[in-house]
Amino acid sequence: MLTSGNQYVLGIDIGGTNLRLALADMAGGAIVAKWSSSTAGSRDANVIIDLIRSGAEELLRQADVPRSALKAVAAGAPGVTNVEAGIVVATSYLLGWRNVPLRDLLEAAFEVPAAVDNDVNLAAIGEYWAGAAKGVRDFVFLAVGTGIGAGIILDGKPFRGMDWSAGEIGYMLVPGVSDGVADTSTPGALEELIGGEGIRAEWRRRWSKGGTSLCKDLTATEIFDGAVSGDALARSILEQSARLLAYAIYNISLVLNCSLFLLGGGVGMHRALGDATRQELEKWRRHGNMQLIHSGLGVDAQLIGAVRLALDTANDRGGIAETAASKVERTFNATRRK
Amino acid sequence: MLTSGNQYVLGIDIGGTNLRLALADMAGGAIVAKWSSSTAGSRDANVIIDLIRSGAEELLRQADVPRSALKAVAAGAPGVTNVEAGIVVATSYLLGWRNVPLRDLLEAAFEVPAAVDNDVNLAAIGEYWAGAAKGVRDFVFLAVGTGIGAGIILDGKPFRGMDWSAGEIGYMLVPGVSDGVADTSTPGALEELIGGEGIRAEWRRRWSKGGTSLCKDLTATEIFDGAVSGDALARSILEQSARLLAYAIYNISLVLNCSLFLLGGGVGMHRALGDATRQELEKWRRHGNMQLIHSGLGVDAQLIGAVRLALDTANDRGGIAETAASKVERTFNATRRK
Repeated sequence: MLTSGNQYVLGIDIGGTNLRLALADMAGGAIVAKWSSSTAGSRDANVIIDLIRSGAEELLRQADVPRSALKAVAAGAPGVTNVEAGIVVATSYLLGWRNVPLRDLLEAAFEVPAAVDNDVNLAAIGEYWAGAAKGVRDFVFLAVGTGIGAGIILDGKPFRGMDWSAGEIGYMLVPGVSDGVADTSTPGALEELIGGEGIRAEWRRRWSKGGTSLCKDLTATEIFDGAVSGDALARSILEQSARLLAYAIYNISLVLNCSLFLLGGGVGMHRALGDATRQELEKWRRHGNMQLIHSGLGVDAQLIGAVRLALDTANDRGGIAETAASKVERTFNATRRK
Repeated sequence: MLTSGNQYVLGIDIGGTNLRLALADMAGGAIVAKWSSSTAGSRDANVIIDLIRSGAEELLRQADVPRSALKAVAAGAPGVTNVEAGIVVATSYLLGWRNVPLRDLLEAAFEVPAAVDNDVNLAAIGEYWAGAAKGVRDFVFLAVGTGIGAGIILDGKPFRGMDWSAGEIGYMLVPGVSDGVADTSTPGALEELIGGEGIRAEWRRRWSKGGTSLCKDLTATEIFDGAVSGDALARSILEQSARLLAYAIYNISLVLNCSLFLLGGGVGMHRALGDATRQELEKWRRHGNMQLIHSGLGVDAQLIGAVRLALDTANDRGGIAETAASKVERTFNATRRK
């Protein structure tokens, strides 16, 4: 299938715990190979770049693609990202990056055009391109993983905000969260209760030998599994998460007048969280037509968004005339370097 | 000053309790005469149109302007307004309009081009054109009056949302409000506590003969005056309003990544509310650079926004070459009929 004339792009999803790469064929945008690794303990951007480079080499080898056929790379980072300057302004407490010139680092490493964006924005772009929000011009992608964030598409374009931090809802104040002021280096009040780490911590806080037959050290998704199996404590934690998530969705829908919400991320993809949150949203049905569905691309959403950004980047700079990406309506101009 | 060759537009602010008109000179955009009346008890759109017509006649007479010199009218309505179709989809419980073709009614009444928008959007447009946010490309106008609402300017354009209801924050869920589901025909939970009527009701609920020396029947601004004078009960109500308003501002800033907020509306213009809310916002200074200032145009913001919309409407249809409005950057194209 792969001819020597084919050209490729690399999509990169840099997470707080995992690094994932996808090599995609520029002709059709199809992913031909994927690779992943842990980023745990690697806070240094240069260490991450080395990891990306060795993963890319592995992918090219796997897919039997020569290095010269790689035409662009694009990466999503878990934090505020200045798309125009190509700089990751700040990431969460897990990576702790400040003003990392990620685009320049990637261009130096691969010697091809590179682009960067916030990972949740890329997830939204991925869903708009090839997922559950295909062709929907206004929607919000909610990533519930270690932390929580929203990727906003308004009138068919990513809405990033004046300082690239639109949708940073981890600190949102809703009924039931502490309204004390948290430090910026710690998770926000909402995140503390519905982010993956927050759910684990809440479970451990409320766990007692007599209160549940489940063990004390569980992940958020294991706790949700327990809720589905009928454990009362797990159920109450699931319900709390769903209620707070519904509040956040409702508040976002009031501000943006958006009706479609996509739920994604490692914790968000759990079916039980979607079901329980939809039940909560039902209560406000008269106040607006909010629809919550799961991400169509699942844990790949960010990665596929990064592939799309890489395709756009290659087409903008490489001058390739006829590709799937160039035929797609070019709504993501803003993601490209000025 | 007024020559027979001058041309004029009419700006209209339809409120839940007051109707206000302004006649403006197209050459400079300056307001040459104003008129106002109560709308209390007039829920019928045709009655309001008659009131507008008689007010306009009075204004033209006052300013010695012939009827033929009026080139366009524009009105702001207190509710969800479909700007493209010229229809007021729904107003608050005070007017109770549903799908009123306000633009057509105005065009029939005046036989000149007309345009309509939500009143809070017009306030934001007014502030952007001639008020405290002149030239600021991203900001939110918060109208705190009988109810509360937000007019959002993003990248220099009004952001109205897919169903024209962006910024309808009266139902926002923040810590301290009831998270029970209110009926859509009643004020929202947030509005119940910080809207003018909500503040009055809260005062009456908490009032007791021994608890305060102030009387039981006060308006929201009188209660805030009482707070400034040192009344403890009034102070606690002011502080509650400020805290909840700060929560709403914080939530909006997280979603939109906006830093400038303008506080307006009959209740919002009270200096004490701005001061107390700024104090609350100080606590989150590390989380974002939120700035809260009072509206520069005060109670005229909506009306001046309506004048601006009328000027745009006249210039679009009337083909007048050289006016102040046509020289101003035409950022409000979206407000015009397609």
